[in-house]
Amino acid sequence: MPLSPSILKSLTSPTISPMAKSTPKLTQSALGWAAQDSSGKLTPFMFKRRENGLDDVTIKILYCGMCRTDVHFAKNDWGNTTYPIVPGYEIIGIVIKVGSNVSKFKVGERVGVGYVAATCLDCELCNSFQENYCDQMKPVYNSIHWDDTPTYGGYSTIMVADHRYVVHIPDSLPMDRAAPLMGAGLTVYTAMKNSNLFESPGKHMAVIGLGGVGHMAIKFGKAFGHHVTVISTSPSKEKDAKEKLDADGFILSTDLKQMQRNRRSLDFIIDTVSAKHSLGPYLELLKVNGTISIVGEPAQPIEVLATPLIYGKKVVRGSIIGSVKELQEMMNFCGKHNILCEIELVTIDKINEAFDRLSKNDVKFRFVLNVAAHQYSSRL
Amino acid sequence: MPLSPSILKSLTSPTISPMAKSTPKLTQSALGWAAQDSSGKLTPFMFKRRENGLDDVTIKILYCGMCRTDVHFAKNDWGNTTYPIVPGYEIIGIVIKVGSNVSKFKVGERVGVGYVAATCLDCELCNSFQENYCDQMKPVYNSIHWDDTPTYGGYSTIMVADHRYVVHIPDSLPMDRAAPLMGAGLTVYTAMKNSNLFESPGKHMAVIGLGGVGHMAIKFGKAFGHHVTVISTSPSKEKDAKEKLDADGFILSTDLKQMQRNRRSLDFIIDTVSAKHSLGPYLELLKVNGTISIVGEPAQPIEVLATPLIYGKKVVRGSIIGSVKELQEMMNFCGKHNILCEIELVTIDKINEAFDRLSKNDVKFRFVLNVAAHQYSSRL
Repeated sequence: MPLSPSILKSLTSPTISPMAKSTPKLTQSALGWAAQDSSGKLTPFMFKRRENGLDDVTIKILYCGMCRTDVHFAKNDWGNTTYPIVPGYEIIGIVIKVGSNVSKFKVGERVGVGYVAATCLDCELCNSFQENYCDQMKPVYNSIHWDDTPTYGGYSTIMVADHRYVVHIPDSLPMDRAAPLMGAGLTVYTAMKNSNLFESPGKHMAVIGLGGVGHMAIKFGKAFGHHVTVISTSPSKEKDAKEKLDADGFILSTDLKQMQRNRRSLDFIIDTVSAKHSLGPYLELLKVNGTISIVGEPAQPIEVLATPLIYGKKVVRGSIIGSVKELQEMMNFCGKHNILCEIELVTIDKINEAFDRLSKNDVKFRFVLNVAAHQYSSRL
Repeated sequence: MPLSPSILKSLTSPTISPMAKSTPKLTQSALGWAAQDSSGKLTPFMFKRRENGLDDVTIKILYCGMCRTDVHFAKNDWGNTTYPIVPGYEIIGIVIKVGSNVSKFKVGERVGVGYVAATCLDCELCNSFQENYCDQMKPVYNSIHWDDTPTYGGYSTIMVADHRYVVHIPDSLPMDRAAPLMGAGLTVYTAMKNSNLFESPGKHMAVIGLGGVGHMAIKFGKAFGHHVTVISTSPSKEKDAKEKLDADGFILSTDLKQMQRNRRSLDFIIDTVSAKHSLGPYLELLKVNGTISIVGEPAQPIEVLATPLIYGKKVVRGSIIGSVKELQEMMNFCGKHNILCEIELVTIDKINEAFDRLSKNDVKFRFVLNVAAHQYSSRL
């Protein structure tokens, strides 16, 4: 992605802008787990991260969520992968270095880094706490940072991050189960907030897709005070949904009678499905003025039937991750309400097995890479 | 469509409810132009309308807009037509009888009747001025009214309407050019209002499809104070759009350079297209937080690409016609700002020719059936 004029200007300007303070010196040794080709197989990868700049913090990574997105990138499923690639964007660790411009973080503090590594910092979106939608947003892996070096993600031992993209993790939250909040949690939190679910309890909402993202939608839905239904093609999900995750209702979408019975019953649906699908039957479930929020990213077009959409002035709204402000807000909310992900910890030696299982959706509900165990065993 | 429990109750209840006041006595002679089969050919059709009930007004029809929807119903394109069918839902005329419960209208007044002939009057939607989305809504043709008689539309000499679905036409508006405001005008007015375009001037908006509905979106867009661009696959539309309709901009959607140059430039798009299409390229034109409003009803699913939708928290919103309250609001706004449709008047003897031309989209911009000329010549 070419650099924006504003970034180029900042890099060449004699005045010191925030971006100019980053340094391209690569001095900090890191061990990562990288895919080298489209097999997606992860192997140890020694590399250097940049010197801790004036605006940076260096983080010893302890846990990193493993999302199916990581598998797609590792295997070049979207055709835009640059190898080697170190995946991982749900990163939790401890601050070990702090740049002199940074007052918000101290050595030893628990912090998180999410999908966004850099943005232009001066556009309308960056200036209105929507920097995750900035046209010059650089993801935390498979991108090129301000200093022209590749970004490498959280399947690694350390991270250097500009402090503006780092958040505090409340003391009450265990770090392993907090890791997927950085991505899956943020995605549903902001999608629900964008649709006014945050401060208007008592709505009837539903979740399509009971994976890493979907199960967090149940938790936030309940915490926000809504009646939460799970919609699934699989009857076997009902038990998990109700007993493990405390959902209030369950609709089997393959059962036409159930679908008909629930016509126009829902204020809000969050659709986390990444496979090809039609919204037609789900739009029928929405009340007039209801919203379906799309947070998955199917490669093929989503099919929207006009009839239920227009005869009910219904809304299909997209949303992806969230801003750093929203991330910190969400973390604080989770700390206060003890909202955590359901996870399965993966040690480094099982990382490829976990990747294979992710491809098959064989996970309840999120894998988290246990970098901490590696750090301890290798005394890094 | 089965009657709702609330309507059944009202029809059998000893207490006098508004609905119970309608009478099934068919006493008023009307001449209509009806299709008798799926050829869609319109021929004269003598029938009776109900006696003017306590809540009714009887209207001498002068003009009726001709919409492609009328052709689809006449030809049973959607498989749900009951013959004979008298189309027409953009109805303008003069009050000739007033029921004793009606204080809002007087004999001789100019009035309009739109798509909605009846609703349940007691649901949440009816009680919140959204009765056009009521589950028991009865359209003005091809439906069954409260009294179990078929509804027949505005291609006819008289109409009997419950006064709750009738609006005043401001004196300043010529009646022929006001007729399509009842449908096409209302559709874009409410869609734009739903997306907060009414009271926030200075937005960049665009219109896809320059037909009866689309050309009204330009007029309302300009009247609301926006910068209005027309998006079309046809370069020949640019002249009409800019010179005749005063549009500010034009984007040829088949020109990739133009589309790329206008990426993330629009706050709002109104999509009036009824043919199969993908929203992908249009979603790219929207700014972050932008909305595309769907008011056409393609039979095949609209294709929505997740990527531009989610990376920009964009909104796809459906809308269809509007409430009676919105209809009166819009009429008053049009009266004040002299907003009128561009029409071609069609005399009764050319009604089938007009239907054929509608099928081919050969109209600028709306046909209006000149029932007035017929009324005059036949001295009805």
